[in-house]
Amino acid sequence: MKDDSAELSFLRSSLIPESPVFDNSGFLSWFDELRDSNALHVRPIRFDEMDRWGFEPSTRNLVHDSGRFFRIEGVRVETNFGDDHHWDQPIINQPEIGILGILAKRFGGILHFLMQAKAEPGNINALQLSPTVQATRSNYNQVHGGRVPDYLEYFMAAPLERRRVDQLQTEQGSRFLKKRNRNMIVETLDEVPVRDGFRWLTLGEIKRLHRLDNFVNMDARSVISCIPFLDRKRGPADLTEARGLAGFAKDLLESVHAEDRAVYTMDALLAWITEMKTRFELRTETIPLGELRSWNITERAIAHESRRFFSVIAVDVEAGMREVARWTQPMLRDTTAGHHGFITQKHKGVLHFLVQAKVEPGNVDVVDLAPTVSLSNTESRRANAQAFPFLGRFLDSRPDEIRYSTIQSEEGGRFFQFLNHNVILEVGASEVLDVPDYYTWMTLGQLLEFLRHGYLCVDARTLLSCLSWT
Amino acid sequence: MKDDSAELSFLRSSLIPESPVFDNSGFLSWFDELRDSNALHVRPIRFDEMDRWGFEPSTRNLVHDSGRFFRIEGVRVETNFGDDHHWDQPIINQPEIGILGILAKRFGGILHFLMQAKAEPGNINALQLSPTVQATRSNYNQVHGGRVPDYLEYFMAAPLERRRVDQLQTEQGSRFLKKRNRNMIVETLDEVPVRDGFRWLTLGEIKRLHRLDNFVNMDARSVISCIPFLDRKRGPADLTEARGLAGFAKDLLESVHAEDRAVYTMDALLAWITEMKTRFELRTETIPLGELRSWNITERAIAHESRRFFSVIAVDVEAGMREVARWTQPMLRDTTAGHHGFITQKHKGVLHFLVQAKVEPGNVDVVDLAPTVSLSNTESRRANAQAFPFLGRFLDSRPDEIRYSTIQSEEGGRFFQFLNHNVILEVGASEVLDVPDYYTWMTLGQLLEFLRHGYLCVDARTLLSCLSWT
Repeated sequence: MKDDSAELSFLRSSLIPESPVFDNSGFLSWFDELRDSNALHVRPIRFDEMDRWGFEPSTRNLVHDSGRFFRIEGVRVETNFGDDHHWDQPIINQPEIGILGILAKRFGGILHFLMQAKAEPGNINALQLSPTVQATRSNYNQVHGGRVPDYLEYFMAAPLERRRVDQLQTEQGSRFLKKRNRNMIVETLDEVPVRDGFRWLTLGEIKRLHRLDNFVNMDARSVISCIPFLDRKRGPADLTEARGLAGFAKDLLESVHAEDRAVYTMDALLAWITEMKTRFELRTETIPLGELRSWNITERAIAHESRRFFSVIAVDVEAGMREVARWTQPMLRDTTAGHHGFITQKHKGVLHFLVQAKVEPGNVDVVDLAPTVSLSNTESRRANAQAFPFLGRFLDSRPDEIRYSTIQSEEGGRFFQFLNHNVILEVGASEVLDVPDYYTWMTLGQLLEFLRHGYLCVDARTLLSCLSWT
Repeated sequence: MKDDSAELSFLRSSLIPESPVFDNSGFLSWFDELRDSNALHVRPIRFDEMDRWGFEPSTRNLVHDSGRFFRIEGVRVETNFGDDHHWDQPIINQPEIGILGILAKRFGGILHFLMQAKAEPGNINALQLSPTVQATRSNYNQVHGGRVPDYLEYFMAAPLERRRVDQLQTEQGSRFLKKRNRNMIVETLDEVPVRDGFRWLTLGEIKRLHRLDNFVNMDARSVISCIPFLDRKRGPADLTEARGLAGFAKDLLESVHAEDRAVYTMDALLAWITEMKTRFELRTETIPLGELRSWNITERAIAHESRRFFSVIAVDVEAGMREVARWTQPMLRDTTAGHHGFITQKHKGVLHFLVQAKVEPGNVDVVDLAPTVSLSNTESRRANAQAFPFLGRFLDSRPDEIRYSTIQSEEGGRFFQFLNHNVILEVGASEVLDVPDYYTWMTLGQLLEFLRHGYLCVDARTLLSCLSWT
């Protein structure tokens, strides 16, 4: 078999729902067994029960006494975006670039990905399918000693042409202050030992697992979203596997390569983004946690007076297999689920995504490209859905319009059982939507092009990672 | 004639060295006449002679008493890039997005650009060829009253599909703190009155003027650099005008469309950029001007002890035609010229540019893509050229390697007679260059693709704007 181009090799792997090389038929049972033996015991505690974590006396910021890890600080936000123009909130400050890496290798000519069953304290279901490596800068610089994460060496020394993906991508701008990670996929030619808790999967197999609630973790979704399916020279027609596609899967794949039939050119979309970045203003001032207006710090939580937002708590974690057997840490908690959804619709016969220009306080560059709806705590907003563009359209959707729907959770190292509905709708081509001017239509190919340059927020990326053609 | 696509219409215009519609044969005489009648009278003065500008008592920052315009503050810089890892310097803080706009219109099917002969206090030669509009946010919001710049209305209300270019692009990260402007080209279908001091030129005519020293101003060069020549569907072969090209012009044009023969794929280049942004660290802390180490504030200048860097001065300006007839302002001054140069070389038969990942204190995102050499004050560095990669290669270049060489000046509204040599070299394909790992090779098409997303520093952009195929 002639070697696929990088893009085609990804596409082919995504079209293969069962690896012909590895027998993954028992995958879910294997995962369940690991869950039983590796679950973390997590217990909310008082802030003053935390070990080496505490409130800095002058600011009441929540910090580790080594200065390592992350800090929870306050921000005072001013913006002309949305309805709330001034607010205070806690935010995670972790000014270092971590690595989220998936190791890839061809077996039988087909790209497979080395995925990990990993426990995190905030995980629903204890274990979730995770990238090969999640490493902080202190991990990979080894400045503090400690155990080097498994497989990290494949990422640190990878030559450029083996790094199929190596992009800086943002985390949640609503929760993190300008945080970015390196999202990497390295294709290795070496022999790779498979350690306990790791399995090789095709992209098609991973995409199937995306249909399960709370199964594929946020970091894995983020890395997978960066996969470049665009191939300017050879289209999917070159792949026998793609020929039988029909319906939404076929429309999706066409939307990757249909720039010539897009509603807007890339230059027009860039002009729109420029206008949004010019129109919307954002001032985010770091302030001491102790000075937040409308937030109360109690023994066990930092919470908003209205109880309508997330809170900060402390947890005690007991582990079986982790680097450190027991630790305490702060986490962010939200008691009700949010909603992340893309509306798609055919224009000129090509499937387009309805994309929002959205301002979040921790955004790296004011505006990110976000899903059609991207809201936390939707329960409290249901009664007032008309105040949030398109939320009502999701709440009123018919079953035959729903192309994808699961519950996915946020990263379990920082977020305690944070849930979001992830939904992709296709509305009929004849339906007339009332689209505000901070929304626009893009093909999937255009979205992927903006994604590789870092324009998309993590909510948009993880929704795109769930798209599949099998 | 069938309408050209946006990209082809730009390319066609760039290949037309004399407008068949407007008689521009007397253009240079017209420009000289304007110069005589419109020159500004500029005179260095003491800081305490400035009107409404002065040193803020607490910080000694240089500010306007309205809080408008810009401020000159200090920054304390820490980085692991280059040889100097710690320094203080003055910097211009102007946290607003201005508009640099060129109005375009087809005459006889050919795109023409409305260019302005504009005086700025820092200009060498008094008048330089400038965009149709250079507007600050206060200009276009009209919050302070004052005269609206001519033609601004064509830019403020332009529909997306008429904005051929609308991109956020950076200014000098060595002099400005995270400053960006909107670079716009709007193609209008309306009748356009041509006011005094304005002329319609083809892109080919403008490119010819780029060969003159200090003629096309920096803002015009920046906007012109953003022109998208890439057309994925139709190549230059569709243009009869392009068929006769030979030599460097032909190689350049091929390098726009040769992604499949590039040394690196776009994904590999993105991986390299990600590594550079991860490896290089930059901490820029704003400090009061009065606290700068190694800088002295005297009656007439803020200057470095070594005299080897730029200084800040005050000037009195008397104008004929400006909105305000007389004013004073601070400016940045450098007494010796800098050097901006790209080395180009054929790899796999395709012309590539040698691009540097460069850290400057005011960069928006740590690292910008810069020319092979981008240095101020090269006179003082000549004796020690081997300390600066590739500077010696430029100093020792042979005449037959020089594809472009002019002296261009920085923006005359902030910079007082700042000059830079702008040089493009082509070295033989067999020459082996010792390329440090913070350099890489890109085709012109790849550079243009990164440019549209804001990766290139203004020095790299203005060098690219000078490239021409006529």
